[in-house]
Amino acid sequence: MERRIPTREEVLAYLHERRNWGRWGANDQVGAINLITPEKRVKAASLVRTGRSVSLSRDFPKQPGGGNTYPAQHWMKTVPRGTGGFSADYYGIFYHGIASTHLDALCHTWDDQGMWNGRDPQQEITFEGAMFGGVEHWDTGLITRGVLLDVPKHRGEPYVTLDKPVHGWELEDIAKAEGITLEPGDAIVVYSGRDASQAAHPGQYYEVPFGTPNPVRPGLHASCLPFLRDNDIAVLVWDMMDASPNGYDLPWSVHGAIFAYGIALLDNALLQPLAEVCAAAGRYEFMLIIAPLKVVGGTGSPANPIALF
Amino acid sequence: MERRIPTREEVLAYLHERRNWGRWGANDQVGAINLITPEKRVKAASLVRTGRSVSLSRDFPKQPGGGNTYPAQHWMKTVPRGTGGFSADYYGIFYHGIASTHLDALCHTWDDQGMWNGRDPQQEITFEGAMFGGVEHWDTGLITRGVLLDVPKHRGEPYVTLDKPVHGWELEDIAKAEGITLEPGDAIVVYSGRDASQAAHPGQYYEVPFGTPNPVRPGLHASCLPFLRDNDIAVLVWDMMDASPNGYDLPWSVHGAIFAYGIALLDNALLQPLAEVCAAAGRYEFMLIIAPLKVVGGTGSPANPIALF
Amino acid sequence: MERRIPTREEVLAYLHERRNWGRWGANDQVGAINLITPEKRVKAASLVRTGRSVSLSRDFPKQPGGGNTYPAQHWMKTVPRGTGGFSADYYGIFYHGIASTHLDALCHTWDDQGMWNGRDPQQEITFEGAMFGGVEHWDTGLITRGVLLDVPKHRGEPYVTLDKPVHGWELEDIAKAEGITLEPGDAIVVYSGRDASQAAHPGQYYEVPFGTPNPVRPGLHASCLPFLRDNDIAVLVWDMMDASPNGYDLPWSVHGAIFAYGIALLDNALLQPLAEVCAAAGRYEFMLIIAPLKVVGGTGSPANPIALF
Amino acid sequence: MERRIPTREEVLAYLHERRNWGRWGANDQVGAINLITPEKRVKAASLVRTGRSVSLSRDFPKQPGGGNTYPAQHWMKTVPRGTGGFSADYYGIFYHGIASTHLDALCHTWDDQGMWNGRDPQQEITFEGAMFGGVEHWDTGLITRGVLLDVPKHRGEPYVTLDKPVHGWELEDIAKAEGITLEPGDAIVVYSGRDASQAAHPGQYYEVPFGTPNPVRPGLHASCLPFLRDNDIAVLVWDMMDASPNGYDLPWSVHGAIFAYGIALLDNALLQPLAEVCAAAGRYEFMLIIAPLKVVGGTGSPANPIALF
Repeated sequence: MERRIPTREEVLAYLHERRNWGRWGANDQVGAINLITPEKRVKAASLVRTGRSVSLSRDFPKQPGGGNTYPAQHWMKTVPRGTGGFSADYYGIFYHGIASTHLDALCHTWDDQGMWNGRDPQQEITFEGAMFGGVEHWDTGLITRGVLLDVPKHRGEPYVTLDKPVHGWELEDIAKAEGITLEPGDAIVVYSGRDASQAAHPGQYYEVPFGTPNPVRPGLHASCLPFLRDNDIAVLVWDMMDASPNGYDLPWSVHGAIFAYGIALLDNALLQPLAEVCAAAGRYEFMLIIAPLKVVGGTGSPANPIALF
Repeated sequence: MERRIPTREEVLAYLHERRNWGRWGANDQVGAINLITPEKRVKAASLVRTGRSVSLSRDFPKQPGGGNTYPAQHWMKTVPRGTGGFSADYYGIFYHGIASTHLDALCHTWDDQGMWNGRDPQQEITFEGAMFGGVEHWDTGLITRGVLLDVPKHRGEPYVTLDKPVHGWELEDIAKAEGITLEPGDAIVVYSGRDASQAAHPGQYYEVPFGTPNPVRPGLHASCLPFLRDNDIAVLVWDMMDASPNGYDLPWSVHGAIFAYGIALLDNALLQPLAEVCAAAGRYEFMLIIAPLKVVGGTGSPANPIALF
Repeated sequence: MERRIPTREEVLAYLHERRNWGRWGANDQVGAINLITPEKRVKAASLVRTGRSVSLSRDFPKQPGGGNTYPAQHWMKTVPRGTGGFSADYYGIFYHGIASTHLDALCHTWDDQGMWNGRDPQQEITFEGAMFGGVEHWDTGLITRGVLLDVPKHRGEPYVTLDKPVHGWELEDIAKAEGITLEPGDAIVVYSGRDASQAAHPGQYYEVPFGTPNPVRPGLHASCLPFLRDNDIAVLVWDMMDASPNGYDLPWSVHGAIFAYGIALLDNALLQPLAEVCAAAGRYEFMLIIAPLKVVGGTGSPANPIALF
Repeated sequence: MERRIPTREEVLAYLHERRNWGRWGANDQVGAINLITPEKRVKAASLVRTGRSVSLSRDFPKQPGGGNTYPAQHWMKTVPRGTGGFSADYYGIFYHGIASTHLDALCHTWDDQGMWNGRDPQQEITFEGAMFGGVEHWDTGLITRGVLLDVPKHRGEPYVTLDKPVHGWELEDIAKAEGITLEPGDAIVVYSGRDASQAAHPGQYYEVPFGTPNPVRPGLHASCLPFLRDNDIAVLVWDMMDASPNGYDLPWSVHGAIFAYGIALLDNALLQPLAEVCAAAGRYEFMLIIAPLKVVGGTGSPANPIALF
């Protein structure tokens, strides 16, 4: 992989020339998750040795705050029942954005050439939900080998900064340093030190209201696109997201992997605990499990991803 | 196990004398999930051989209907973004009841002696959520061996009927017939043929509005309580629930396993597909994965449970 | 007014030939509410003599039930504040349908010729709300003379039945019998005895789930359309709605008055108390006040209409 | 009225010694709205001369922002219906706070001595709503004489500032200067120039997130309490609220008028347009109409208050 900033034409080529449209059929709604074969799941399960389980989920984001423009709703009831009773609650969440740990379905993003497999969002996205690429097509879960790529550790710095976005060749270096050979259908889990970054920059970056035009946020560079494509990655789990602005005046850089490659993105993961476990164990691969809610026509799902060692 | 209907005193003894309060400490909020040790998870993972994955989730219940008094909400947006755009959606759900596939946390039920570990619901259940026994204490997931107990197959009948509730000794028989020896920390998945029952009884049983007083519903008898306790079951996944009325004028029969034993209940699972897979493979054990949303103070979580073979 | 059932062609003519499109300008979003001039409001206020105030609102429909497919949400909080505190609550409602007392805005209905003033719903109704004919254009309220037309009293029957829908000429007769001369900008309040009808037909008519195809409901006949148009009625308040099926295979009969004439409909009013007050006082006119929430792009509003005598 | 800052003891006396508990019966849930007699409504209607109608409502607060921590929800649907169709929408709002124009019911606030009429909030405020003092007790509307008290005009300053809260004696002066003699059951509408203040102080005062501890906000001083009580005011409509901090370490200063006097507060009104109309007409009284949603057990209601001249 060439170690230089790609040109706009190159990035467009990543998104348009190397895309996976038609690779699993013109009407496929599963995308790169097709790469997670039953054999791949068996291999993932075979990685479980100590039984340690780590949640990659942040708390359901009830608290308002800079990055949490639309706080999740949690309303309670108690109901008497004879000499006993029960408690019940309502959960409501507009989960995309920068606060909630959630999965993006194939219908979530598009550019001027369309959604996954070339579909037209004007046709497919309706008041009733997505007619194509909804999250229900992943209802058997995303269960595969997860590989942590620990950027702060590799850099010897506490977190990814604005001036040094994560590049594809850097991910390559990290995998090699960790002794990992990537394989088709893998999930990569890119840790960028988001929480340390936020502690150092309160009110900035991932605490700027979602929906603010042209937000400034450290994260991954468009150069990660060919890395994802070359390695046939199926799932990208991350704590920081696309470096923003992306520098190419494109609606999407790394998030373009959804519509171009059919890759599942798991946004706003909590990765510091995972990084600590991996570093302590000297082990960067594990069984990764993401079980999205089965919402027909849903554009994704809040989720609690689990790494099992 | 004695094969007779227990008396009211015996059922009260199941709930009050054999309870697990204090077994894992007076302040424990994990309950029988403590039985799912790391070793147990390793053993569960070792069951994965073919890599086949089966979802045990019904669709997110958006459609109103008899059993779905409070339909789940799914609202859509599309948002332009430069030359592209994205779709996003809101999910809202009051998930307890009989429509949604969901997990019950330890704070969900109580009788006159209190909640799990003897806590007082008047103190613990607040407008802000549960202060004790919230679902966040299970954030590393419920990952253990799952064992399907297929009642209709065992009986040679399409579904459990009102007049023949499922008894504890019957579950024992089924396990034996399937060649299963139950072990502490197992999840049992009790298939009662709910969907076939509903097809035969439209508008009745699990299609009667949630909240109707004294509903009539086929399901599991209070005699299952000692079966759960004797076998140190950690998780009960089921499609039908407590046979109702329970016959003892108690607020809870099988649902009492939550507050008495600290067992996790996964209600309204979709089990016919799983039963078919098990029957075809002649195999009744698998790796079971439930990954609840991490809602601090939540009384449970909608979930997509996954069986991995 | 001719006393016979109109033909399909005549009904189509009511909707398409006599419509008010362009009457107040091609871009008008106020519709027949333009007929409620300041002078009209002054006259309405001059009707206030005893100061008696009557609410025409049903309770906010929190309870699930046949006609209440999507129960309104009411969630509570209490919040401590020093040595005191406060309570606060969330209201949520999908208010159209047959359960909630609510106002329909000009964007609410259309047929194949379009929305109010000929606008195209495909263009105007977006994920962000209605771009044309939203309820905010009525933010100064609907304040005019209200006239009760008491059908049960006129008929000497407790309620309107399926086989005898309310016709336009009957409304004419009732007004005359009540000594009322209708004037442009009036609100007519058509009482059909809905609650007595429901008491006699539990689970039918207005208790059949909203969204059921081809519902059967007593109410007003398409022959009321020319009555509304001839008299330049601005607002129609009613307890029963369009008789259904409408008998013409049209998407809308009386509800067509919204897009054809620009009339505001106030659906599911509670009218028995008003009818009793009017009968006792021998007085059928009053000051009517409807103050919709100011929701930009809203398709209507839950409301508490008030009659002031 | 003495023109000096009251002591803490005096403010406590306003709240505890001069309160209206029991004045309309020990179980009364209507409070000072009892002062709005039918005769009072007749007099209010008699004020209508030009028929001009002015809305005092801000837009339904959908947009996130500093002062709008919990944005109101507005979700859209379109539904086809034969050759036509309809649009419908969901409104959801947690309306208390500083963003939404809304009414406070008698159950909304309390101090250590209790809620309106001495009730105990621990007993009365439940998961099902308020059992006492809910907004449904005002379902016939708050319809009375409204009197604008224009503080900026009186001061010759664009808005009320932090260092000069509005005092009771100043309201007295303003009424006199406007030629108004207050009468029992009146609604006073106190205009403080909130929007001009916010334009000059972006991100401060009424744009600081609701829920921030010890917010700093200009507004009305506790000295307004005896003014409200002496004049038997029934409704207080305002754009700014209690000056904060209130200076007495009390949970509530002016908001104490709810539990002490039974007065209805209409918070976050939009008053600049009204002030302009009043100034242009040289007329400060009008018919005021507030029609809350009829939510049984509701702690208030979003509302669109209307001034009719």
